[in-house]
Amino acid sequence: MPKTAQRTDLVIVGAGPVGLFAVFECGMLDMKCHVIDALDAVGGQCLALYPEKPIYDIPGYPEISAGDLIRRLEAQARPFKPVYHLDQRVEAVTPDGGERWLVETDAGTAINARAVIVAAGVGAFGPNRPPLEGIEDFENQGAGAGVHYLVKRAEDFRGKKVVIAGGGDSAVDWALSLAKVAGRLTVVHRRHKFRAAPESAGKLKKLARDGAIDLVIPFQLAALEGEGGRLRAVLVRDLDGGERRIEADALLPFYGLAQDLGPIAEWGLNLERNLVGVDPSTCLTNRPGIFAIGDIAAYPGKLKLILTGFSEAAMAAHAAYALVHPEQELHFEYSTIKGLPGGGS
Amino acid sequence: MPKTAQRTDLVIVGAGPVGLFAVFECGMLDMKCHVIDALDAVGGQCLALYPEKPIYDIPGYPEISAGDLIRRLEAQARPFKPVYHLDQRVEAVTPDGGERWLVETDAGTAINARAVIVAAGVGAFGPNRPPLEGIEDFENQGAGAGVHYLVKRAEDFRGKKVVIAGGGDSAVDWALSLAKVAGRLTVVHRRHKFRAAPESAGKLKKLARDGAIDLVIPFQLAALEGEGGRLRAVLVRDLDGGERRIEADALLPFYGLAQDLGPIAEWGLNLERNLVGVDPSTCLTNRPGIFAIGDIAAYPGKLKLILTGFSEAAMAAHAAYALVHPEQELHFEYSTIKGLPGGGS
Repeated sequence: MPKTAQRTDLVIVGAGPVGLFAVFECGMLDMKCHVIDALDAVGGQCLALYPEKPIYDIPGYPEISAGDLIRRLEAQARPFKPVYHLDQRVEAVTPDGGERWLVETDAGTAINARAVIVAAGVGAFGPNRPPLEGIEDFENQGAGAGVHYLVKRAEDFRGKKVVIAGGGDSAVDWALSLAKVAGRLTVVHRRHKFRAAPESAGKLKKLARDGAIDLVIPFQLAALEGEGGRLRAVLVRDLDGGERRIEADALLPFYGLAQDLGPIAEWGLNLERNLVGVDPSTCLTNRPGIFAIGDIAAYPGKLKLILTGFSEAAMAAHAAYALVHPEQELHFEYSTIKGLPGGGS
Repeated sequence: MPKTAQRTDLVIVGAGPVGLFAVFECGMLDMKCHVIDALDAVGGQCLALYPEKPIYDIPGYPEISAGDLIRRLEAQARPFKPVYHLDQRVEAVTPDGGERWLVETDAGTAINARAVIVAAGVGAFGPNRPPLEGIEDFENQGAGAGVHYLVKRAEDFRGKKVVIAGGGDSAVDWALSLAKVAGRLTVVHRRHKFRAAPESAGKLKKLARDGAIDLVIPFQLAALEGEGGRLRAVLVRDLDGGERRIEADALLPFYGLAQDLGPIAEWGLNLERNLVGVDPSTCLTNRPGIFAIGDIAAYPGKLKLILTGFSEAAMAAHAAYALVHPEQELHFEYSTIKGLPGGGS
């Protein structure tokens, strides 16, 4: 059965801060946007991974949390009524008659647009999963049980036997935090040295000296023990083959994020090491009508900063204007003069 | 007598929003800045010309006044202790031994710096002065009297005979505003049509129909009448040579801003129609160690947006780092990780 594609001016792939600001910039130039994101909420990494983390380099905000930044960017985009398609991945971007593109997602959404702006950050991202046999069986076993790659609520682990694996900031910070609620907390790391803020690593070692937590270093995860999705213990091994068994209700591996461009790699774009090469004067990729902005876009001198992505969003929007409104010359006006739809001065 | 130059990492020419953000970006990269501006306060045009005007396209601010934006940018720069040299113009930028620059102002300030970032907007700017003989004599005659190019307080004109000249937004907006306080208000414009927001132009014409103000169109300013700096009347002329005399305590010409690069034109930079050409990957000009950012910087695809200037500030700061700290490789870190001096997390 042929799908009926929705028709719009632009599809923006990625609802992180840069994608949201692209909605605003396109809106100011009288272009409508649909926005697609693999996550089930707008905000990208900012909201999914570190909503409470302060950011210091957003111009005009001496300090703002990632979550607040996202909420403000979403509010700024709202007057332009973007259509969000969340919790779905773009599977294909293919030519669709004339100079338009058909964008299709794994949820069956089909959108016909004049241009596409890829603001996909590092691509669909997910935690690095430790290479342990049968680990999938212990995932998604509910709050406080089995294997978790993110902590949503520390309280879920109250009284539980928790094993944290890893030696970076996430592992150390969560160890310090969960030490207060867990019944027993063990940190497994393959080195003696932690790659975390020195002050935090120092606190962790003091907790271990005081007997409040167990530090199992240098050890690596070796196997999981349990049945029917119920975790019982984590087996670890040192470099000499020495093994230990740690009783566990929950294992939290913090091994960083896997960056997965996913289907984007199949769209015929000019890729350079998981990044999309663009013309720095327009953010246009090698395919006409497909732009890339934010962390995924590469050109000489590129800085991976949110504020750089904002500037690229403006640039791509202005370049897309000529495609969406070919009949009109862009009489550029500052927002101070033009104002916003349905409000402003 | 030889001056003793102060020594610093960078001189930033221009304390508008982009110059202020450059202080922050340089500070995050451990570089100290001196900032020079021709105005007597930071903020550039934003604060000098339209402090109360709302801006809609600062990322993360659905609406912010120009004044508030400046105050926040200044606060963001403050931890890095910039040294401001206000109310003075940079007269010369000359090589000063090795790879450094000597920056000298008309107030006698001399600074030796490794690099210079020109964030001078449209240059030193000022109002366009009507070509009337002896107009200078009527300037700076105190509140509510003589010729003024800016209105600081509407109240100064209470009960006065005021002539506004011009047909743009400033002329129309101030006419609407001063109509409420002036004893008699006359608007002189050389055309029938106003280049202002249609709604405002409509209000102006209604005031004229109601007899609340006088609209003298199409007429041009011809001469000023008065003695000893005291204005008595404004003489105007139409295209056919017909003259009128309008009694006046004050004349407010709103003929737009003159953009004057001033001495910047003498620094050996690659100028393109009053703009400075830069390498878009670094914002470096044709002179090594001199960068240009914000509205004054030109490259293919350039957008004259404040947010674009912010991105350029980051780019120039990163490029300058290699000059200021040649011995150190820049290990780039996000502000979320690094935090700020003397605070932050």
